[in-house]
Amino acid sequence: MRPYDVILKKRNGMELSKEEIKFMVTGFVKGDVPDYQMAAFLMAVYFRHMNDVERYNLTEIMAHSGDTIDLSPIPGIKVDKHSTGGVGDKTTLVLAPMVSACGLPVAKMSGRGLGHTGGTIDKLEAIPGFRTSLSEEEFMKNVKEHGIAVVGQTANLAPADKKIYALRDVTATIDEISLIASSIMSKKLAAGADGIVLDVKVGSGAFMKNIASATDLARAMVDIGKRHGRETVALLTNMDRPLGNTVGNALEVKEAIETLKGNGPWDLEELCVELGAQMLRIGKIAQTLEEARKMLRDSIKSGKALNKFKELVEIQGGDPRVVDDTSLLGVSSKTYELKSPKDGYVYSMNAEEVGISSMMLGAGRTKKEDKIDLSVGIELMKKTGDEVKAGETLCVLYYNDDKRLQESIDTLLNAYDIKEVKPKEEKLVHGVVQ
Amino acid sequence: MRPYDVILKKRNGMELSKEEIKFMVTGFVKGDVPDYQMAAFLMAVYFRHMNDVERYNLTEIMAHSGDTIDLSPIPGIKVDKHSTGGVGDKTTLVLAPMVSACGLPVAKMSGRGLGHTGGTIDKLEAIPGFRTSLSEEEFMKNVKEHGIAVVGQTANLAPADKKIYALRDVTATIDEISLIASSIMSKKLAAGADGIVLDVKVGSGAFMKNIASATDLARAMVDIGKRHGRETVALLTNMDRPLGNTVGNALEVKEAIETLKGNGPWDLEELCVELGAQMLRIGKIAQTLEEARKMLRDSIKSGKALNKFKELVEIQGGDPRVVDDTSLLGVSSKTYELKSPKDGYVYSMNAEEVGISSMMLGAGRTKKEDKIDLSVGIELMKKTGDEVKAGETLCVLYYNDDKRLQESIDTLLNAYDIKEVKPKEEKLVHGVVQ
Repeated sequence: MRPYDVILKKRNGMELSKEEIKFMVTGFVKGDVPDYQMAAFLMAVYFRHMNDVERYNLTEIMAHSGDTIDLSPIPGIKVDKHSTGGVGDKTTLVLAPMVSACGLPVAKMSGRGLGHTGGTIDKLEAIPGFRTSLSEEEFMKNVKEHGIAVVGQTANLAPADKKIYALRDVTATIDEISLIASSIMSKKLAAGADGIVLDVKVGSGAFMKNIASATDLARAMVDIGKRHGRETVALLTNMDRPLGNTVGNALEVKEAIETLKGNGPWDLEELCVELGAQMLRIGKIAQTLEEARKMLRDSIKSGKALNKFKELVEIQGGDPRVVDDTSLLGVSSKTYELKSPKDGYVYSMNAEEVGISSMMLGAGRTKKEDKIDLSVGIELMKKTGDEVKAGETLCVLYYNDDKRLQESIDTLLNAYDIKEVKPKEEKLVHGVVQ
Repeated sequence: MRPYDVILKKRNGMELSKEEIKFMVTGFVKGDVPDYQMAAFLMAVYFRHMNDVERYNLTEIMAHSGDTIDLSPIPGIKVDKHSTGGVGDKTTLVLAPMVSACGLPVAKMSGRGLGHTGGTIDKLEAIPGFRTSLSEEEFMKNVKEHGIAVVGQTANLAPADKKIYALRDVTATIDEISLIASSIMSKKLAAGADGIVLDVKVGSGAFMKNIASATDLARAMVDIGKRHGRETVALLTNMDRPLGNTVGNALEVKEAIETLKGNGPWDLEELCVELGAQMLRIGKIAQTLEEARKMLRDSIKSGKALNKFKELVEIQGGDPRVVDDTSLLGVSSKTYELKSPKDGYVYSMNAEEVGISSMMLGAGRTKKEDKIDLSVGIELMKKTGDEVKAGETLCVLYYNDDKRLQESIDTLLNAYDIKEVKPKEEKLVHGVVQ
């Protein structure tokens, strides 16, 4: 077998065998297949795609290219959650304690962010003392004893995906359904959960801009999961506006805590209830989604979810007082209130531009090496559908660097589309793929 | 500008500006654009193609990436000829002396072969003493004084094409019209001729298997030539069977000499007349194609073309006695006669397999570094349309290495399709694109 022949076969639109895919992927990881041949291959896949079986095989090969986590020492069904990424997405911070409080063990490996905002791991580091890096023993012990652990990825999970992703990133071959689906699912499979709940974001702040493409991606991922014997479900959720009212790291932790106290924005709480309900159903903690939703809402009302969050902070070395005194999170004290230029309704928002605006303040990375300023970000006082008067505050910018403020303000103003008419109400969950 | 953006733009099917193409090509040559990005770009071009203007620009940029030959010291209009490559194609050996004998100066740079048979330069080296490498001064002097020179490419013509071609060769991005057309034309433009006659081969032994794709390629090349102010014409010619009756280096030189003596196969002579007529018309040696054809046929009848060939051999250091005694060419004395297994007609031939069979005997290269055995090859006693009896000789194999003979015989037998019915007669020239 030669790399040339595999490239040619895919270029000509033919189905690749498992052996052929394995030859390319493992050859590339070992350095036997040079990057220029892999790049041509990926572009051929971009145009010709991969069918269900090819995707399954690609995922399987990448999932087994490095370490795999064995969660079997933890009793019960383990359910993982993954979001395709959006603006203001602090779901894990709220959802993990909620489902853990309901009795589902949470053994979560999260990533750092690349793009508008930090990832879950970056956000958690806004909590003084919080350790996002635990040994495997400590990680397993915490899940067994406390039902919760949230850490950065330490094991060498799916290194083939990592190497291929880096090449896709510089060859304009990121946005192809098979490649996205197998990339995400290979890491989820290696992380060892029995069930997987996927939050596929759709809209201006998401990778998938419309429901059709998001549905395709969701179907591909669910199919891959099922073929691997993992119960998998995907929710298509609205990312035409940021999730919740804050974008930025410390600000988002603060909002997560407020949500766990029952004072959070409705969309964030609802999304956590919907995703959590699927997790509890798959984990056989609840018989029905309705029952699960009730359990999750109760976990907030009763304070159990908040306590579980406090417990998480404590066992991972963080200062648990942040729960009662969110000023300890160190949100920047320099603020700028952006006023509405006119009367009307927020007709639509470009969520991506809100994210970029936050990144400009220092809350996100443009390069992997960038250091994030955890204290900055944006608090949205008005979101899509809200009425606004001229001169009323649209949002508050928390900043440190005066030089980058104006750029951020301009981008934010662009992100708001204010009209005289009220927009139609949008759904939070567009659909479920399972 | 970033390579990523240019890849993305082409991937999305948009037209690239001259600056963008230049950025990629010159960046790649300089090493600023890494090969993996160029490979992804080429695969995107494979799927999205390039329009007329993009092709023109790509050709222009590659043509000026290295040396360009200035033929202006040679008086008159200089016309070049290029064949897209076929099996048994010894046209240049016959055509160059013919048109030179008619008064058109021939300043020809030819290549070595990669594939079934040697190129013109390999073939000429079957003539004892013949020097295919001349200094630029000697080359120009010979053309000025003798009206003919045929040399290997010594100048650094279109190095960008060379580097890109090497990458295409290993990334399955060879067979795309824009890339083929700009590759060929960039070298022709750099070689400095005022007019270009293209021989686009069509059929089982050619790169282009059908008339439609060959016409597309011909149109693309003619368009590029005209946009550069060079009169360009392309003939689509039959390559469903080898050209002439010999395949192999010394054997082909022998056949070329026979053709110049007026004893050659009709198809080779006719093709030289048709290509030559276009050259004489463009070179304003003849007013009409009919007049040109007559001049060319006369150049054979009168012995002028043969004398010009002899002169070429002599001035480039070769032994001119080969013209009268072709045994000096050193054709192998070991022969094997392949007999027909049945009565019938040669209904069709797979010309490519004839070429491969000859390569197996040692007449061609599988790798650039391979050494060619100039003495071996195949003489076809029967070609498409010929009647044959069982036991009658189909062809004679001239070989040296007994070990590879059987393999070659098997391939050759496969190349012949013998049926009871006589096939329809095929045209030698399918059409002219200008």
